[in-house]
Amino acid sequence: MNLIPAVLIRKKRDGLELSREELFFMVNGCFRGEIPDYQMAALLMAITLRGLQKKEAGHLTDAMLKSGQQVSFTHTKYPAVDKHSTGGIGDKTSLLIAPIVAACGVPVPMIAGRGLGHTGGTLDKMEAIPGFNIQLSLQSFQQQVSTLGCALIGQTAEICPADKKMYALRDVTGTVESIGLICASILSKKIAEGICGLVMDVKTGSGAFMKTLEDAQELARWLVETAALNHVQTVAYVTQMNQPLGRFVGNAIEVLECLSLFENKSVMQFSPQDFSDTRELSLVLSAEMLVLAQRCSTYDEAHALAEKTLTSGQAYEMFCKMVTAQGGRLSEFQMQPASWETVAATQDGFVETFNAEDIGYATISLGAGRLKTSDAIDHQASLIVHKKIGDAVKKGETLFSFTSRTQDKNSQAHQFLTKSCKISLQKVPAPSLILGRVDNLKDFRRP
Amino acid sequence: MNLIPAVLIRKKRDGLELSREELFFMVNGCFRGEIPDYQMAALLMAITLRGLQKKEAGHLTDAMLKSGQQVSFTHTKYPAVDKHSTGGIGDKTSLLIAPIVAACGVPVPMIAGRGLGHTGGTLDKMEAIPGFNIQLSLQSFQQQVSTLGCALIGQTAEICPADKKMYALRDVTGTVESIGLICASILSKKIAEGICGLVMDVKTGSGAFMKTLEDAQELARWLVETAALNHVQTVAYVTQMNQPLGRFVGNAIEVLECLSLFENKSVMQFSPQDFSDTRELSLVLSAEMLVLAQRCSTYDEAHALAEKTLTSGQAYEMFCKMVTAQGGRLSEFQMQPASWETVAATQDGFVETFNAEDIGYATISLGAGRLKTSDAIDHQASLIVHKKIGDAVKKGETLFSFTSRTQDKNSQAHQFLTKSCKISLQKVPAPSLILGRVDNLKDFRRP
Repeated sequence: MNLIPAVLIRKKRDGLELSREELFFMVNGCFRGEIPDYQMAALLMAITLRGLQKKEAGHLTDAMLKSGQQVSFTHTKYPAVDKHSTGGIGDKTSLLIAPIVAACGVPVPMIAGRGLGHTGGTLDKMEAIPGFNIQLSLQSFQQQVSTLGCALIGQTAEICPADKKMYALRDVTGTVESIGLICASILSKKIAEGICGLVMDVKTGSGAFMKTLEDAQELARWLVETAALNHVQTVAYVTQMNQPLGRFVGNAIEVLECLSLFENKSVMQFSPQDFSDTRELSLVLSAEMLVLAQRCSTYDEAHALAEKTLTSGQAYEMFCKMVTAQGGRLSEFQMQPASWETVAATQDGFVETFNAEDIGYATISLGAGRLKTSDAIDHQASLIVHKKIGDAVKKGETLFSFTSRTQDKNSQAHQFLTKSCKISLQKVPAPSLILGRVDNLKDFRRP
Repeated sequence: MNLIPAVLIRKKRDGLELSREELFFMVNGCFRGEIPDYQMAALLMAITLRGLQKKEAGHLTDAMLKSGQQVSFTHTKYPAVDKHSTGGIGDKTSLLIAPIVAACGVPVPMIAGRGLGHTGGTLDKMEAIPGFNIQLSLQSFQQQVSTLGCALIGQTAEICPADKKMYALRDVTGTVESIGLICASILSKKIAEGICGLVMDVKTGSGAFMKTLEDAQELARWLVETAALNHVQTVAYVTQMNQPLGRFVGNAIEVLECLSLFENKSVMQFSPQDFSDTRELSLVLSAEMLVLAQRCSTYDEAHALAEKTLTSGQAYEMFCKMVTAQGGRLSEFQMQPASWETVAATQDGFVETFNAEDIGYATISLGAGRLKTSDAIDHQASLIVHKKIGDAVKKGETLFSFTSRTQDKNSQAHQFLTKSCKISLQKVPAPSLILGRVDNLKDFRRP
């Protein structure tokens, strides 16, 4: 069949559905340079304004997936699963989840990302461990997951090159904010990992990209249904991101929070109980992964197994093995802050809420993230959240403490932080961490 | 101010209005190659789906206008005016109007087009006259209009280069069908001619681009209001295009129809009365131009003057002068058809309507127009409409006759024509030629 790009663009412009063949034609043509960028840009804008059917998002996912290589795990005892978050602040659950699930015998091939916007990135955190190498070849990645149980690497050029091309185009043409395109971009990269099941953590609140619960729920539904169309069973959680997860925000310091939970030890002045939200979210998501992989038959059994794996030290053992396998030297890992500054409460009361996005930007301004892609990261730059939503606070008590290498950066962070915490005179309840769960059991396969 | 293309694209994507400065920035950036085509394509799609305010179309018109050179007529007795049609079949009024108005002392700097789609083009018709040169420099064009009174040339590279660039992009990105963009594209090129007034002939019906009266009226309103924002007073007529204008369709043969009206003589078996619709529309549009140029103070006075100028032979004299000035040799002009074929009525009755687009395609298939831009034109290829809407017809009577250089083309045309005429058993009234008129007297200037 002879497809004409301009005709397909007009079809979507007029709100009609594009067929699988038509979407593959456009994605492949764009990726191979046979269809010029201006035609793809026009199509992306038409998609952004006219929307996609979930069926179309499914085909788009598959087209982007098939533009590159796919990993596969056909000889492992259990099928591979993974977890992905839409991005938050202080969210270090990946560092805990991959070892927990892998220590239970379920392969976790985790291709993670860098910080984006005001959010932190798993790769940046792992690179706080001296020597840790996130650039494995796809073959070494597959090998390590098969033999050891997990690996944590960055995006490679072989995975979904069409998504890379299209994402770059979306970034500069105002077409990022399309739920169908977001869905296809996330899922194609995850499905390429060779997973049979995916747990999505869709964050909502002031520190998330999806500010409203409604938008987050909608994205959760889209992810679950679009993944199902591509034969990957997905469970999506909508979780609260009005405040950082845990207490520590940065890179080395987030690894430290994980070590506290892995080793059940106090770090700095904080006990593992101070990180209970990080711990609980990690266990919940791990449990879902264990069910998806059919390692456990019920969620309760899976949660108990995940918890046992964490408290017994088996998860920590797996973490150490993964770090070592990827060249990391945990013995050399340390927090060496220059000096700490603090932001104190200006009144008595209760923490009502945070502008968590500002906390994210404060952390980035300290040097823990990038304002532009060429920026270097200071892995030691850190922020500590001393009071969380619902906590009582007295005037003069520390709300935040933070550190970076330069005084200049500290003053910027100070500005972000002073306006980021809202104190109420009335008692405020601690907020729920988990706001919703979406799944779809209709379509399942082991790849 | 530091404008960012992606931000402006998002603004239009979200349905907001772009400022004059923002539209100039995008148009100039695109035209100079500083803004990549994919960003312009995304903006064009956002405009097509979200629409423009008339104010924005006005700014866009001005931005495209100012991307190139403009002609001006400041030393002529009357200001320059022009006429433009949205495209029809058998519409040779430009050939009559330019000389009529110029012979009345009003300059007509006419930059005309080639055939587009199923419609004919004024330039193709004029080139049926041996030697006629449509490629004058902008300077010679201005000179000829100033001294002689009119000139008829093709688009030059100096006029609205941004429109040229953007039109090429729209053509392949499904963004042609935007009333605001159509408006800006038409008007920028016309305003560049240095005119103070414009008469638009917006065609509607089966042979027009605007199939419905509603769409044509909407475009007429847009053209009048957008032109007014750019200080060019415009009168827009909505005229009927369910059948070819006049009897003759092609290139040389359309010149012949004009010569019949100029010289008030019969051509082939047709008398000037057989071309009364061509004559009347030419006089109406000429009269409006004479009023716009303030050559006449009332429409009736202007219509009488236009008619007198045509019947007295002064218009023909002007036509001959213009042809000669542009190298044309009217003495060598002739119709030399190979042989004529006919399509006959298959039943008694009355002509109810035509699919005029099919008549256009029949004429093009004969060689009178181009299916692709590289096609050569056969100026002798011709079609004659023997019966018009409302005419009584007997089985076996000729509906159409046509000629081209090759038998092969004739059979294609035959196919188009046999299905293009609908005959009714009941008497049908002759349709109105003029369906509406839009003007706006609020803003007027002599450039």
